[in-house]
Amino acid sequence: MKTKVIVCEPGKKVRLDRIPTDAEGSSTSKEEGTALTEMIRPRLRDLQERFYAEGRRGLVVVFQAMDTGGKDGAVRNLFTGVDPAGVDVTGFKSPTGAELAHDYLWRLHQKVPSRGKIGVWNRSHYEDILAVRVRRLVPEEVWKRRFGHVNDFERMLTDEGFVVVKYFLHISHDTQKRRLEERLADPSKHWKFDPSDLEDRELWTEYQHAYEDVFEKCSTSWAPWRIVPADRKWARNLALMQDMVEILEGLDPRPPASKFDLSKITIR
Amino acid sequence: MKTKVIVCEPGKKVRLDRIPTDAEGSSTSKEEGTALTEMIRPRLRDLQERFYAEGRRGLVVVFQAMDTGGKDGAVRNLFTGVDPAGVDVTGFKSPTGAELAHDYLWRLHQKVPSRGKIGVWNRSHYEDILAVRVRRLVPEEVWKRRFGHVNDFERMLTDEGFVVVKYFLHISHDTQKRRLEERLADPSKHWKFDPSDLEDRELWTEYQHAYEDVFEKCSTSWAPWRIVPADRKWARNLALMQDMVEILEGLDPRPPASKFDLSKITIR
Repeated sequence: MKTKVIVCEPGKKVRLDRIPTDAEGSSTSKEEGTALTEMIRPRLRDLQERFYAEGRRGLVVVFQAMDTGGKDGAVRNLFTGVDPAGVDVTGFKSPTGAELAHDYLWRLHQKVPSRGKIGVWNRSHYEDILAVRVRRLVPEEVWKRRFGHVNDFERMLTDEGFVVVKYFLHISHDTQKRRLEERLADPSKHWKFDPSDLEDRELWTEYQHAYEDVFEKCSTSWAPWRIVPADRKWARNLALMQDMVEILEGLDPRPPASKFDLSKITIR
Repeated sequence: MKTKVIVCEPGKKVRLDRIPTDAEGSSTSKEEGTALTEMIRPRLRDLQERFYAEGRRGLVVVFQAMDTGGKDGAVRNLFTGVDPAGVDVTGFKSPTGAELAHDYLWRLHQKVPSRGKIGVWNRSHYEDILAVRVRRLVPEEVWKRRFGHVNDFERMLTDEGFVVVKYFLHISHDTQKRRLEERLADPSKHWKFDPSDLEDRELWTEYQHAYEDVFEKCSTSWAPWRIVPADRKWARNLALMQDMVEILEGLDPRPPASKFDLSKITIR
């Protein structure tokens, strides 16, 4: 069974309401799916180790989603068990102070990982196209220009040996309602509840359209968007695990040969 | 008298050997030129203050030159007397360690100034096109791709409210010889002498051609290259002072209106 991650085609219009938020046609149960994820996990660990040892390329993994889309949980599930020395996770919140005093890519660029490392971005430069558009924080001409900037930025990174993978965790309007209600009902989750989430929920349709434009304009041959059905967490986790392993296997990381002739070394 | 700074046209082939390294047709003496520079200096100070108070845009000033071209002296002369809180000077040396482990624009982007400030770059991302080409540190396909990257990068900065000014201090082969000899003859200048300067001097012609390509490919409507005749230091200083003042006057920085009705405030 393979849960489908949809890889967007450059320049192709995306209709999110026609893309399932749930893995269709799956006969796998939650137990089977979770067990499968765990079966694959050692391969991810091994691939990350080889990627680190190779030290020639870096990997940026972007996570975007509507509120309650599951970014935190997805990152936690995917990278738990991987050597934390090789993975840096950064959450990009609303920019403040020194961040606003610079261009919007300034704080992102600082968090591009060094060669051999994986940099995970919980939210990203795409908020500077999405949120600022929907919340009308900058004029249209400003956010529209940024489609080109981010493509150029990701192109440069790719040319210089960095791989950019972009995931959108796709949930339904109903799933968001249910998850927000769960947060309200569970005091241990109250810290995650932000009244502005409700404002954003009012803007659901506008956000979906803004995302559709991003998938059309900013899916490139070097860094396409990948849409992950995310209504069921275990299926989302499995899909991400399978996809990430496939991507890393495609990169085929190979540790460099030793600089020394190890056959001549004796340990006394 | 106006010492000519040549602003390169986008896409136009430049022949450095046809561009004077000395201000031609100038009847000004060293004393008159130096006095004129000092007469203009207060205007630069005033413009920088207004630029800082406006706090809406940032300014990047790039200096490139052949060895002994006078970057250190030019920066010192131009910005001495300006409020140092508003000017950050960064010298970019050969990249090492963490810098090499990232893409070549990573360390540069961190030094893009915040809004209101002037960031002066002594050497820059252009070394990642120039030096790596002439010294054959990366394959041709790598440095050739970078013409596009740096144009995109500077375009993004410009779109986001940052002004990029790029100066090439243009000296003759003979001037370099004389200045290197002076460094060798003066023990107080020995710290500035690096034997690799002699290697680079051997590569003079290749460097000049590499610069010519940069001026052709990376002079854009948003960030053209500006060539400054630099054989005579006082004339170079005057040219830079006049040009920088003209650029800042063109930007017309205006401090924002106060958020308070100051007419209603009484100081007790």
